[in-house]
Amino acid sequence: MSPTPEWVMMGGEDAESYKKHSAYQRALVEAANEKINEVILASLSLDLISNGFSVADFGCASGPNTFVAVQTIIDAVENKYRKETGQNPVDNIEFQVLFNDLSNNDFNSLFRTLPSDRRYYSAGVPGSFFDRVLPKQSLHIGVMNYAFQFISKVPKGILDRDSPMWNRDIHCTGFNNKVKKAYLDQYLVDTKKILDARAEELVPGGLMLILGSCLKDGMKMSETYRGIVLDLIGASLNDLAHHGIIEQEKVDSFNIRLYIAEEGELRQIIEENGKFTVEAFEDINQPIEESSDPKIFVASSKAALGGILSAHFGAEAMRKAFDLVEVKAHQNFSRIENAKPGMQYLIVLRKN
Amino acid sequence: MSPTPEWVMMGGEDAESYKKHSAYQRALVEAANEKINEVILASLSLDLISNGFSVADFGCASGPNTFVAVQTIIDAVENKYRKETGQNPVDNIEFQVLFNDLSNNDFNSLFRTLPSDRRYYSAGVPGSFFDRVLPKQSLHIGVMNYAFQFISKVPKGILDRDSPMWNRDIHCTGFNNKVKKAYLDQYLVDTKKILDARAEELVPGGLMLILGSCLKDGMKMSETYRGIVLDLIGASLNDLAHHGIIEQEKVDSFNIRLYIAEEGELRQIIEENGKFTVEAFEDINQPIEESSDPKIFVASSKAALGGILSAHFGAEAMRKAFDLVEVKAHQNFSRIENAKPGMQYLIVLRKN
Repeated sequence: MSPTPEWVMMGGEDAESYKKHSAYQRALVEAANEKINEVILASLSLDLISNGFSVADFGCASGPNTFVAVQTIIDAVENKYRKETGQNPVDNIEFQVLFNDLSNNDFNSLFRTLPSDRRYYSAGVPGSFFDRVLPKQSLHIGVMNYAFQFISKVPKGILDRDSPMWNRDIHCTGFNNKVKKAYLDQYLVDTKKILDARAEELVPGGLMLILGSCLKDGMKMSETYRGIVLDLIGASLNDLAHHGIIEQEKVDSFNIRLYIAEEGELRQIIEENGKFTVEAFEDINQPIEESSDPKIFVASSKAALGGILSAHFGAEAMRKAFDLVEVKAHQNFSRIENAKPGMQYLIVLRKN
Repeated sequence: MSPTPEWVMMGGEDAESYKKHSAYQRALVEAANEKINEVILASLSLDLISNGFSVADFGCASGPNTFVAVQTIIDAVENKYRKETGQNPVDNIEFQVLFNDLSNNDFNSLFRTLPSDRRYYSAGVPGSFFDRVLPKQSLHIGVMNYAFQFISKVPKGILDRDSPMWNRDIHCTGFNNKVKKAYLDQYLVDTKKILDARAEELVPGGLMLILGSCLKDGMKMSETYRGIVLDLIGASLNDLAHHGIIEQEKVDSFNIRLYIAEEGELRQIIEENGKFTVEAFEDINQPIEESSDPKIFVASSKAALGGILSAHFGAEAMRKAFDLVEVKAHQNFSRIENAKPGMQYLIVLRKN
C-alpha cells in the first residue's frame, strides 16, 4: 500500500527537502502494509480466492503509487492462500488489476510504466468513482488511497463572494459552522454514492480498503498540520492577488475539493450505509513527527499541492505562492509546531 | 462492425477523395454488420447471455471504429436476448467492453472519446494480442478488426540487403517463394499464438469474430488492389531514396508487418489449432468496385498507410511519396483497373 498522506499524488520538486519529508510517508506506508497483510489474512474468506481474483484501485492517478498499492494486496492474498492451502498461488490464481480514475487521467503514462515483472492482467477503467465503473459482483478487493476524502463538487455559495456562505479559504477550515455543514452535506451525498457503487461491484465477502486522513472528533481542520498547509497556501494566494500578481477572480474560483471528516462522521457514514461490516478502523499515524522546519513544510506542501496550483495558476505563480508560504511558515512556526496530530486511517470494510 | 478494409486504422487527409473511397468501406461495414447479427443469433448460446457479458476488441487502436464495432456486437446480443426470452436486455444484462491494444496505443484519446450514450462499462487493456491479455474464461465475444493479418515481426533476412532473402518490397508480394515462405512461417507462429490466447480467454461457447483481407487461393498479393497500393508506395519510396530525398537505409528498414494469407492457409491454421469450430467463413466483398481513379487510389492509400509512413519518414517525405504514388497510379492505370478482387472475410469461431 502506498498512501501518500496528502490529498493528491504529486512528485516533489525540491529533492532534498522532499526526501526528508518522505521519511514520514515511508513509515506510514510500512505501517499500512503490515496492517493490510494482517487484515486480509483475518478477514478475507478463503472461498473467494479462486482461479480469478480481481483488485481495483479507485482514483489510481497515473502511478507509480498505485503499483505499490495493488502489489501489497496481491502479496497479502497470495500469502494467505499459501498459508492456508499449502499450495503455490502462482499455479492456481490469475490476478486482474483494474486501475480506475477519471477519463482525463493520464492512462498512457500509467500503461507505459506498468511494472515489467508484474504477474497480473491489467486494465484501465475510465470513469468517476462516485458512480459505478465495474460490472456487478466482479471485484474481490477494492482500494481507495487518499481518495475517499474528495468531494465531487464544491458546495453552492462557497466560491461566491456575494453569498452569505462565501468561504475565503481554499478548503473547509471547520471554524465556520455553516460552511462546515455545506461541506459535510456534500460529503454525505458523495460517500454514500461511493459506498453504494462499491457494494454493487464487490462480490459478497469482498473487501474495501480505504486509506485517508481524518480528524479526531471535535478537532478542527485548521488545527492540524495539513490544515495549516492549506491555510498558508490560501493566505499566500490572497496576498499575491492583493498585490496584483495573480487575479483575485482566479483565487476566488480555486478550491481543493476536499473534506477531511471527523472519525465519528466516517463511522456514522458507514453504519448508515449499512452495506458493509467494519473489519478494521485504525489510526496508522506514526510516532515520527512531521517536521516544523519551514523548508520541509514547504517541500511537503509543494509535493501535495504544487501540481493542482500549477494547473490553475501556472508554474510561475505556483512558485511565488510557495515562496510566500515559506515566509509564512517562519511566521507561524509555533502554530505548526503545536499542530494537533491528524489521524491517518485504514478502514477495511467487508461487503455483507 | 466497422472494418476498415485496410491494414491500419487511419483517418484520411484529403476529405473529398476519402469520402469517395469510403463508399466502398461503408458498403463493407453494412454487409459485415448484417452478417454479424445473423451469426450471433444463430451461433451464440442463449445460456451465455447472463447478468454479465463481456466483449473485447483486440487491436482496437484509439477509435472511433472500435466503438462502432463493439456496439454492433452488443446490439446483436441484445437482439437475440430480446427475441428469445421476450425480456428487456437493458434490465438484465450488464455489458463490459475491453479495448485492447499495445501499451503505447493512445488510450487517453480512446477514453476521452467514449460514446457518452454507451450502456456498457469500459476498460482499456494494454498488451500485445499475440499473448494473453485477459483472465481465463472471462470473455464472451472477442473481435479482431483487420488485425489478424499482422505479424509480430518481419522475418529474418527480409530487411537485410546482404541476405539471399532480401526483399526490396515493403511487404510480401507473393512472387518470390522463399520470401513468401518466410512470411508464412512467421504468420503460422503468430496466428497460433493469437488463437491459443483467445481460446483461454473465451468461455466455452464464446465467439471470436475476425474481419480481414485474404487472397483467393493461388492469387498473389501484387495482383490485388491492396497489393498494388503497397507496390507503388514501395517503388515511390525507393525513387525518393534514389534521388537522395530520403535515406536508402530508412527505406530498407521500412516494412509493413503484414501477411495477407490465402483463404486455404487461413482455414488450415484454424483447423490445425483445433480449439474452435468454424461457424462462418464468408467473403463479404461488395459488388461496388474500388475506383481506379488515381486521385481516389491515392486517397485510399493515404488513409491506409499515411500514418505509418509519416511516423517512419516524417510528414514531408510522406507527402512527397504520395505525390509520386499518384504519378505511378496514372502510369499503372490498367494494372489497377485489372486488379483481381481480394477477399474481405468474416470468420466466426466458436470456442469448443
